[in-house]
Amino acid sequence: MSMDLRAWMQPHLERVEQALAACIAAESPAQLGQAMRYAVLDGGKRLRPLLVLATAEAAGDGESSQAALNAACAIELIHAYSLVHDDMPCMDNDVLRRGKPTVHVQFGQAQALLAGDALQTLAFEILTPSQASVSAPVQADCVALLARASGYQGMAGGQAIDLASVGQSLSEAQLRQMHRLKTGALLLCSVQMGAACVPGVSLQVQTALKRFGEALGLAFQVVDDVLDVTADSATLGKTAGKDEAADKPTYVALMGLDAAKAYADSLAAQAMQALTETGLPEARLAALRALTAMVVERNN
Amino acid sequence: MSMDLRAWMQPHLERVEQALAACIAAESPAQLGQAMRYAVLDGGKRLRPLLVLATAEAAGDGESSQAALNAACAIELIHAYSLVHDDMPCMDNDVLRRGKPTVHVQFGQAQALLAGDALQTLAFEILTPSQASVSAPVQADCVALLARASGYQGMAGGQAIDLASVGQSLSEAQLRQMHRLKTGALLLCSVQMGAACVPGVSLQVQTALKRFGEALGLAFQVVDDVLDVTADSATLGKTAGKDEAADKPTYVALMGLDAAKAYADSLAAQAMQALTETGLPEARLAALRALTAMVVERNN
Repeated sequence: MSMDLRAWMQPHLERVEQALAACIAAESPAQLGQAMRYAVLDGGKRLRPLLVLATAEAAGDGESSQAALNAACAIELIHAYSLVHDDMPCMDNDVLRRGKPTVHVQFGQAQALLAGDALQTLAFEILTPSQASVSAPVQADCVALLARASGYQGMAGGQAIDLASVGQSLSEAQLRQMHRLKTGALLLCSVQMGAACVPGVSLQVQTALKRFGEALGLAFQVVDDVLDVTADSATLGKTAGKDEAADKPTYVALMGLDAAKAYADSLAAQAMQALTETGLPEARLAALRALTAMVVERNN
Repeated sequence: MSMDLRAWMQPHLERVEQALAACIAAESPAQLGQAMRYAVLDGGKRLRPLLVLATAEAAGDGESSQAALNAACAIELIHAYSLVHDDMPCMDNDVLRRGKPTVHVQFGQAQALLAGDALQTLAFEILTPSQASVSAPVQADCVALLARASGYQGMAGGQAIDLASVGQSLSEAQLRQMHRLKTGALLLCSVQMGAACVPGVSLQVQTALKRFGEALGLAFQVVDDVLDVTADSATLGKTAGKDEAADKPTYVALMGLDAAKAYADSLAAQAMQALTETGLPEARLAALRALTAMVVERNN
């Protein structure tokens, strides 16, 4: 089950970086494209795109398609837009992201607002290339999945709960609901879009992959809460300790540091078990297993 | 060619209002849906949805489909999101819209930012219902058209030019380019999506409708510039005279009031001519002709 994740990741990351760089034209009205490129390129772990590609390879014949590469870029654009807007003064008011000044610091608030808006739109543009390269049903499925995962009943709804919950004490169920929407929905969607790019994937595989995506998404957020406490800003590439400073509810605040770490490990084990339940050949699951381990063991 | 536009509009407006009200669930995370409903419902002329429906009826068999109603709602959601973000303090900083306090005044900036984001997402959700109600190729076509019209090479790009051009003197060509993107792209897209909802529409019809949409879009903006000077805030439902106050380039500033009015009339005549060139039966073009007249003769 162990694999050299780095050897798998390198060519996949290169494809994603190249495709992301190519999807924003160098020439753009009033340098809007420049702010968008700044927000998207040269940074980020690309976890969501890698999940799309690894899932498409696992559920398909081991090769990922143009559809999967488009979906990989689209979900990263949604993630990037959410960070740009989340960092703005009226939201988290953060000045550092991936070790660089945030977009509104670099380009001003108005351009950051527009760049975020346009990054979201671009995600849906990427998902609908000419119908020669990706079939219309796959295009429609991917748009449906991404829009539902990122809208008011998904990511944006989770951010609204997050805003409303500052200084509030949440139950574990409420905290899980917030994170299921705010972070989990896009991670689950990465897995679901990867599967949607493989026509004819079985219901068994889809169901098990959904459980995988849900467990992985929650594990990611628990680890995020742990890192906010244990890592420093330089390692994190963003301001550490800001959840605590902002009096935000977190798993660490709720259950303590050690229990939160143990909870992340148990969620990772659930994710691994769900992969087994796909019934797919172990060799094709190796990248998804390695990405799961990376999520739990990461230090930023 | 004359028709009772009001008799045509009333049932169409009712369908659009009902569909818009139904597309945002009453229950939503942290009242995000409330801010979205406030931004979208009980206001607005619904010009873009009416253009979608009138075009689908003209190009089709005189009836508009579920696909056209979805497209009508989607483009209004994009329009609504752009207004919410455009009104924010870091952009136009406007406090009055459709005679009501703007969303950020009513709900705070963070919620306004999220509501705008989620309204955009919802547009793409509406365009991708289950594939039983709208065929996958129509879904993919509509998403492709809407994303391209509203993104960084469309509406958002036009807004970036607008921001960058405050206090600048633009040539007529530059002004036209700004408006072609900022306002024209969505109006043209309304017409193009209406046609895309009619499978098998001919190239002649598509080409003539594109010319129609381009002329109408530019006419709309020229009239907007005229109204900013000639109407008062109460009639306009938003702050009058704000272009001049903000030292923004406008057609009135560029060519004077009378010439701007004459230019709007000549663009409307071009739009009418393009409708003739579709070769569609006059009876089916009546609503589009009446909407064109309304755009030029409106007082708000």
